[in-house]
Amino acid sequence: MAEIRVMKRVLANNDALAADQLAGIDRQGVLSLNLMSGPGAGKTSLIERTIECLRDRVRIYVIEGDIQGSLDAERVAAAGAGVTQVNTQGACHLDAMMLQSVLPGIDLAATDLLIIENVGNLVCPAEFRLPAHFNVTLVSTPEGSDKPAKYPLMFERSDLVLITKTDLLPYVDFDPAEIDRAVARLRVETPVLRLSCRTGVGLDGWLDWLEQKLAARGRVGTGK
Amino acid sequence: MAEIRVMKRVLANNDALAADQLAGIDRQGVLSLNLMSGPGAGKTSLIERTIECLRDRVRIYVIEGDIQGSLDAERVAAAGAGVTQVNTQGACHLDAMMLQSVLPGIDLAATDLLIIENVGNLVCPAEFRLPAHFNVTLVSTPEGSDKPAKYPLMFERSDLVLITKTDLLPYVDFDPAEIDRAVARLRVETPVLRLSCRTGVGLDGWLDWLEQKLAARGRVGTGK
Repeated sequence: MAEIRVMKRVLANNDALAADQLAGIDRQGVLSLNLMSGPGAGKTSLIERTIECLRDRVRIYVIEGDIQGSLDAERVAAAGAGVTQVNTQGACHLDAMMLQSVLPGIDLAATDLLIIENVGNLVCPAEFRLPAHFNVTLVSTPEGSDKPAKYPLMFERSDLVLITKTDLLPYVDFDPAEIDRAVARLRVETPVLRLSCRTGVGLDGWLDWLEQKLAARGRVGTGK
Repeated sequence: MAEIRVMKRVLANNDALAADQLAGIDRQGVLSLNLMSGPGAGKTSLIERTIECLRDRVRIYVIEGDIQGSLDAERVAAAGAGVTQVNTQGACHLDAMMLQSVLPGIDLAATDLLIIENVGNLVCPAEFRLPAHFNVTLVSTPEGSDKPAKYPLMFERSDLVLITKTDLLPYVDFDPAEIDRAVARLRVETPVLRLSCRTGVGLDGWLDWLEQKLAARGRVGTGK
């Protein structure tokens, strides 16, 4: 019982800190997203493509969460956005406390869109709220369409689900309709979009969603 | 500090229990494997193919670890092996305590090979020793060849690494040699094999490794 009580307190403290941080982000009118998925589902590729498509109009800043190393941060920097790497030193998820030390270093007044790329893990990141308006979860076609049934908390807490690597559909066993049905069962209002960062097919749907959310904050076309 | 001390004690207790359990498995001459990977890398497909190839000669029993549901256990049962499902109820990994309640129900005297399929997660399962002789880690080609660099503990603790879904190599950015080099840097003696469960190419290497480990326990050709 003791262990359960301690964990609940950790989560409550995390959620309170994340809410405080999000209030600060809100005061600057910035849109903040928490990107989650299993390893290698294409979070960094999606960020690269998003920067390429929007960098002339939207000021993007990225926080890269990884256990160690800076491979993804280097890719994001090469794509042309500001980026801060957070190494979790073995921890399986980002949490608000880890972001506390990096948020003051980000010029939110010069940012329209903050993207937080979580550690690649379909389990633990879902438990820790981050200072984000929306949780965006990626599931790639080679992973199989049974993922929402097997990792329900992640998909229950998702505001948007992206089926990625749709260019591989001819070569893998994946039923997009199974994802649609499973996500709807967990949280009926969550949209599910399909895209391929490799071919670009479906990226327009993601960019439309993003521009709609940016517009709600008066942020479309406010770029540099 | 308190949190770190508690966690160390949890891990020490887990490791001691796993060692006890493995001693029991050893007394029956059974080979036990802990299969780990990110979500959707093909652990269940590998188990299905292994059962198909060996079921006439090797008595296989599978423990299926999943957060919830029994999708994988149903697939394993359909392939023709005995199987017990362990639901972790939200936990991100299997541990020795979770196996404590199911091991007594398995007829080890009628088993040559015990396969424990861990929860799909490249982070947390690596921290918890299970009653297994070998940790086998799968990384699928669509996940990308940067995975050992990004999830080092998992690969440091692997006795065998399997690159899966090699049939997708023409369609993804994946450099098998990068995995070879990265695994060798973490643990030089760990072999890395390549295979596709879809086409069957490379399965012979995996089956050879398995038969060698079974033979070391006097278990080849002892099937039903």
